[in-house]
Amino acid sequence: MYQAGDVRIENVPDAGIIEPADAVIRVTRACICGSDLWPYHDLEWSENGRRMGHEAIGIVEDVGGDVRTVKKGDFVVMPFAFSDGTCEFCDEGLQTACIHGGFFGSTDVAGAQAEAVRIPLADGTLYVLPTRDVNGLLPSLLTLSDVMGTGHHAAVVAKVGPGKKVAVVGDGAVGLCAVIAAKRMGAEQIIIMGRHHDRIALAKELGATDAVTERGEEGVERVKTLTGGHGVHSVLECVGNEQAMATAVEIARPGGAIGRVGVPHYPGIQPDTTFYNNVTVGGGPAPVRAYIDELLPDVLEGAIQPGRVFDRVIGLDEVPDGYRAMDQREAIKVMVKP
Amino acid sequence: MYQAGDVRIENVPDAGIIEPADAVIRVTRACICGSDLWPYHDLEWSENGRRMGHEAIGIVEDVGGDVRTVKKGDFVVMPFAFSDGTCEFCDEGLQTACIHGGFFGSTDVAGAQAEAVRIPLADGTLYVLPTRDVNGLLPSLLTLSDVMGTGHHAAVVAKVGPGKKVAVVGDGAVGLCAVIAAKRMGAEQIIIMGRHHDRIALAKELGATDAVTERGEEGVERVKTLTGGHGVHSVLECVGNEQAMATAVEIARPGGAIGRVGVPHYPGIQPDTTFYNNVTVGGGPAPVRAYIDELLPDVLEGAIQPGRVFDRVIGLDEVPDGYRAMDQREAIKVMVKP
Repeated sequence: MYQAGDVRIENVPDAGIIEPADAVIRVTRACICGSDLWPYHDLEWSENGRRMGHEAIGIVEDVGGDVRTVKKGDFVVMPFAFSDGTCEFCDEGLQTACIHGGFFGSTDVAGAQAEAVRIPLADGTLYVLPTRDVNGLLPSLLTLSDVMGTGHHAAVVAKVGPGKKVAVVGDGAVGLCAVIAAKRMGAEQIIIMGRHHDRIALAKELGATDAVTERGEEGVERVKTLTGGHGVHSVLECVGNEQAMATAVEIARPGGAIGRVGVPHYPGIQPDTTFYNNVTVGGGPAPVRAYIDELLPDVLEGAIQPGRVFDRVIGLDEVPDGYRAMDQREAIKVMVKP
Repeated sequence: MYQAGDVRIENVPDAGIIEPADAVIRVTRACICGSDLWPYHDLEWSENGRRMGHEAIGIVEDVGGDVRTVKKGDFVVMPFAFSDGTCEFCDEGLQTACIHGGFFGSTDVAGAQAEAVRIPLADGTLYVLPTRDVNGLLPSLLTLSDVMGTGHHAAVVAKVGPGKKVAVVGDGAVGLCAVIAAKRMGAEQIIIMGRHHDRIALAKELGATDAVTERGEEGVERVKTLTGGHGVHSVLECVGNEQAMATAVEIARPGGAIGRVGVPHYPGIQPDTTFYNNVTVGGGPAPVRAYIDELLPDVLEGAIQPGRVFDRVIGLDEVPDGYRAMDQREAIKVMVKP
């Protein structure tokens, strides 16, 4: 991506080992993220552009001399952040704060909308899958690299649990995964807030009990009516714009919690309503690496099917059109099969 | 208080039962709160003024016909908020969100800087102390009505626990109680941030391990240096102004939590640093009623001495001067003996 709206497929030198802790993976499946649409709207022009994509599953093709646990031929999940796996933050399960870590598809590290990717700190970063016999599960496994773990993070931070009333703000792929996470964690009521009828329908198949299509004050009132007047215990904010965050604050029940995973594009979090209602606001880049242990068994058993968020599969050449389709809400989430 | 800076002691009709759920208490001790200084700075003039004071211990003098558990002669703590004790929020221990509740010393309900106070919803509101034989403990018992419970709330929300690094922003009475709470909950390191040498000295007696007297970026750097570079797990924000909140956000370690109990006087909470660091921000009016069960035994045994935050005792006639003394930082916290 050279600048907003300008996505090109180009031949570049092959990905290769640079540091001894690196690996290279051949991408089995990658995808386009809702968060990729932020630079698609506002990235400034640069001569080298940015190599996009931070979600992938793939096969390890090469490893550097210091790599110990990951082997050539391993089938792996590539979380959207790389991490050393040994620092105090990785030890605590917050790999997105790794002291030596960073993000794929950033200015420094190339992305996964490609045939192959260099993986820094391969031992800490890659999650080796226990089997390659995953017929039909590729889409769901791919979501463990970001979108399912991100929805789960929103639910964890928002303290979803049995008997809780939950609202998911946003019906994009993360919002839909947040519905899956909330159901998985035992929520009693799951209200999806969004305006796309096809997505709302899918959300209901995935576990949403109610849908609110209104926005602003009207949407807030609808949620309050649906919850006996006081709002929800847990808000999973999966958009990141000002209206979504304002709604999240207004629909949280006193003593409730907001888990926000939409990249924030708003000037500040409302300090008074959250204070007088004792509402907790948390969240951030999800440590999806830490969550794979917990989510993978449910994916392998088919207990959750987060791969259902993909409604289009394209080849690498079609990636520019994939951005367009997601931006115009023609597609929920686009999978890339290089 | 008729307006900012204008505090008067006046004779008013005696407090009496209005609703059948009311009680009247004779005030044994009351005090002036740091939060009373906000209206002392900005209250607009009104003809009736506001009857100030929301912290008291006292003796029940009269009860209405519907009062069941509280009896005439009981020695009680009056939490700063009144609450029915039966709604879903009271059941959850969040009495400051009680559906029928409210705050003492507000425009609707008279305050405790007085000889006597009417207590709405007496059964839910008042905490009956198990003994009147509390020689020397009156100051510490009085803090259970607000300031000790509020410091404790900051520590609970900021997830203080054994081994944690903690910073307390603000060296006022709440900040000092937050130090007590953090020590009581097993914090490994407690950094007090403030600029008053007498208060810093008291904080160290109460459990602070380090003090940072610098403000702004310099203060942030000092905290980072004291904590090995990453900041603290738990920030207890006990001021409520913009600089204090900005400092709280900057000194929180990735994955950390901020418990804010200073009444917010800032336009918004920084959304980006908190997001990228996965820092949780919570807090609000402390449900001190819920905390008395836990804190009272430690007060009665002398294990904690929050009464040490009082460094001046005055009669009712001196209340206007008490406001002045606290506002000019001559006194940490002023106790009123009617």
